[in-house]
Amino acid sequence: MKTTEFAMKRLQSACAEKGPLCIGLDTDPSYIPEQVLGGYKSPAEAVLAYNRALIEATAPYASCYKVQIAYYEAMGIDGLKSYSETLKAVRATGIPVIADIKRGDIADTAKAYARAHFDGDFEADIITINPYMGFDTLEPFLEYVESAGKGAFVLLRTSNPGMKDIEWLQVSDSEDRVLHSVGNALSQISKRYGNYSSCGPFGAVVGCTEEQDARTLRDRYPDLFFLIPGYGAQGGAARIAATLLDHAGGTVNSSRGILLAWKKDPECIEAAGNKALSLEMMVRAARDGAKSARDELVNAKKELDKSSVPQTGIENV
Amino acid sequence: MKTTEFAMKRLQSACAEKGPLCIGLDTDPSYIPEQVLGGYKSPAEAVLAYNRALIEATAPYASCYKVQIAYYEAMGIDGLKSYSETLKAVRATGIPVIADIKRGDIADTAKAYARAHFDGDFEADIITINPYMGFDTLEPFLEYVESAGKGAFVLLRTSNPGMKDIEWLQVSDSEDRVLHSVGNALSQISKRYGNYSSCGPFGAVVGCTEEQDARTLRDRYPDLFFLIPGYGAQGGAARIAATLLDHAGGTVNSSRGILLAWKKDPECIEAAGNKALSLEMMVRAARDGAKSARDELVNAKKELDKSSVPQTGIENV
Repeated sequence: MKTTEFAMKRLQSACAEKGPLCIGLDTDPSYIPEQVLGGYKSPAEAVLAYNRALIEATAPYASCYKVQIAYYEAMGIDGLKSYSETLKAVRATGIPVIADIKRGDIADTAKAYARAHFDGDFEADIITINPYMGFDTLEPFLEYVESAGKGAFVLLRTSNPGMKDIEWLQVSDSEDRVLHSVGNALSQISKRYGNYSSCGPFGAVVGCTEEQDARTLRDRYPDLFFLIPGYGAQGGAARIAATLLDHAGGTVNSSRGILLAWKKDPECIEAAGNKALSLEMMVRAARDGAKSARDELVNAKKELDKSSVPQTGIENV
Repeated sequence: MKTTEFAMKRLQSACAEKGPLCIGLDTDPSYIPEQVLGGYKSPAEAVLAYNRALIEATAPYASCYKVQIAYYEAMGIDGLKSYSETLKAVRATGIPVIADIKRGDIADTAKAYARAHFDGDFEADIITINPYMGFDTLEPFLEYVESAGKGAFVLLRTSNPGMKDIEWLQVSDSEDRVLHSVGNALSQISKRYGNYSSCGPFGAVVGCTEEQDARTLRDRYPDLFFLIPGYGAQGGAARIAATLLDHAGGTVNSSRGILLAWKKDPECIEAAGNKALSLEMMVRAARDGAKSARDELVNAKKELDKSSVPQTGIENV
């Protein structure tokens, strides 16, 4: 029992200390050019080597890492070995790691997923959950909150166009959307955990694409810690992400913006043209990309805080 | 391109020929008693041995097999090796195999899941999908429908109590529930595939717990082929399952009822008491359990058809 070390609380503290950047290790082998891939026994090994070097280089700028399991599953058994080793590499640094698995199932099957991703080869600190089948699907994960301080982000409002199909449907006799049912359930669960001073063990995934939505959701669920995808390569602006960082705060994911930073780096571009690109050069570009993203987010939050200071200025005297 | 061999159509034909039983290989190692487990190098190997023997013995009674990946993920890398080999063992028989993965994600991530489960180490014929994020999450899977005849069952109405939390919410200005949005989208997708004579490449997961719901959903979506969990150990009656088998039909899953049939078999119980239970005996009980379940379902459908014959009897003259 490590009840004083809840992963979600650790993550919240890391964001306060190092900035809100979550580095997404959605490392598809296609992100690594042939001239570098060729130096490894398999694409899965190249991905692992890139991840390991990237974790070491970007640790000062990362509040956490998020590993998207789909890219590893797509490489089969070898891919899942790299997935397992990537989780271990992050956990060795003491930085929280989020397994972006979006699982969701019932009863014994949900228990099996909890065992799978909170213990053993695929142990992560925090996972993502899909709530479609209902809130009884969340219960089996709470056992690991209580015994091992684990946490989960539940899908609330995603940033894809299809979010209108289910999440955004208006519920009868109410101003609410389907996604509010999820938010309300998560708030209820959080209230059970009084030992959290500022955020509960279950947070919410809220994408950053529309500013007014972002503000409304942030104010409606002040106690929920957010995982915020859609910043950077997916087009979400830092200003919108900053809106979602109010109240309990959140962590803002950037994956391709960092993994593919080498494609915008003049030195890497030249080297790639000469078939002389190395993993070290890619990692240097990723590190610079991570630092820039972290700084952009921190500054956007500062600007937002400044602009929302009351005109009287009394609070700042 | 094997456009004439759509997996969903093959499954529909198999149901017509052999009965609608889908055997669920949710093979948790706890289902195998210590005295049998002890004969294998690891729980994952024991699970694989049980699955292989069970597939061979039950093939005459199975329209398809459904493998629940959660139980294999819970065993880590070794478990996923057994998962991969289990899929291969089913595919070698020519019987369709459903990967019960309930994945759901967007854009490149959904493409990665499609690659993961329609190709390579984890290739299945049909998968299950969670639609919460919206219907753009379904598109990447259609590429494999077209190139390789693959299929998918999308979660529509599950049989857990929590189904009321999201699936069953009533949508504003409508008589519809959230789950009808899913059903309508699946019907639309099916219409794109005119070369299906009787069912489209995307079916729906509809649990068998409430008879009136079952009838209403079955009549509303006559062209959707159903994957029907909740029969047997989960408490759903064969009669309700039979209701869901009308129109385009469906396949009815039983997992624990078959995997754990040995626990109700007098010979196995006695052998277990004497620490003399063998895998062969467990498989024999599972085979008998599968035959009984298949017969019960076929008879329930016959009874239902008989009771719904119009009183004039003209159609049967």
